[in-house]
Amino acid sequence: MANPDQRGRQELLYFDDLHAGQRFTSGTHRIDEEEIKAFARQFDPQPFHVDAEAAKNTLFEGLVASGWHTAAVTMRLLVESGLPVAGGPVGAGGEISWPRPTRPGDVLQVESEVLELRPSRSHPNRGIATVRSETRNQRGEVVQVLIAKLVVPRRSAAAPAPDAPSRDAVVHDVASP
Amino acid sequence: MANPDQRGRQELLYFDDLHAGQRFTSGTHRIDEEEIKAFARQFDPQPFHVDAEAAKNTLFEGLVASGWHTAAVTMRLLVESGLPVAGGPVGAGGEISWPRPTRPGDVLQVESEVLELRPSRSHPNRGIATVRSETRNQRGEVVQVLIAKLVVPRRSAAAPAPDAPSRDAVVHDVASP
Repeated sequence: MANPDQRGRQELLYFDDLHAGQRFTSGTHRIDEEEIKAFARQFDPQPFHVDAEAAKNTLFEGLVASGWHTAAVTMRLLVESGLPVAGGPVGAGGEISWPRPTRPGDVLQVESEVLELRPSRSHPNRGIATVRSETRNQRGEVVQVLIAKLVVPRRSAAAPAPDAPSRDAVVHDVASP
Repeated sequence: MANPDQRGRQELLYFDDLHAGQRFTSGTHRIDEEEIKAFARQFDPQPFHVDAEAAKNTLFEGLVASGWHTAAVTMRLLVESGLPVAGGPVGAGGEISWPRPTRPGDVLQVESEVLELRPSRSHPNRGIATVRSETRNQRGEVVQVLIAKLVVPRRSAAAPAPDAPSRDAVVHDVASP
């Protein structure tokens, strides 16, 4: 999935290295019918996700991936190559929409843009980056838009502190820095 | 996962059967360490999701599930028992947050509440339901909040029409009814 060695070639970015308008492009992933069905059998067993014949008579008029599958593949692309932030993309939430479904054979790619940066007041060793990630298919059609708030360490925080903040502190940060 | 036979015991609800304030409770699912790692290896291969030892030195202080895994398990619980709407829970997007991480051994359950109902102007055979779904662990702590807009058929639309609307029409509905 994606370009397995792309991450190694990218420099990891800290909060201080980011700026609004900065863009990133992920590798690609081709999603096939078996993957769509396997994910859906486990997590979203509805006819339009697990049965190509039955799917023809639904509003999707054919087999489509669960939106949560599109979200999961997007995350893989972001982790591997699409969002080279230090510590990895750690989000506390966001807005998600699926303007179009993902269909078998679609080749997905994620384009991300930094929208806003906000240093944390309570935790000077990190900041919150708001990032918009559009997942597109091979025709350039947007299948998912995700606007996420990510926790990104500052350069000074490169070495993990012994009093590493808890996840609750992270969430507090995002909610009220 | 969840109560396999619970859906069969529930009557499926159409848009006309829903009202604001209506609540639903799903079955439960216990998530274990192997599941967390297997999902993460495929979709979110970061140390705090795939390596219990390495996770101790991260801000999570131990292994946690990918937020997208919590989302996927939540969807399974909603499809099987937690949101008995006709046609299944079909969403075009929403807001998601993870106030706390899901950890190995957590038993998840989803409580949903109908927030708002809006008949479709362009498609009289369906409506849009805004539903808030809280996923809680066995201690009652909220690990995910999802506020989703769902497309729900009206009773008159029980038989699939030959001119079934396309997914694009669904999205248009949600964006501008």
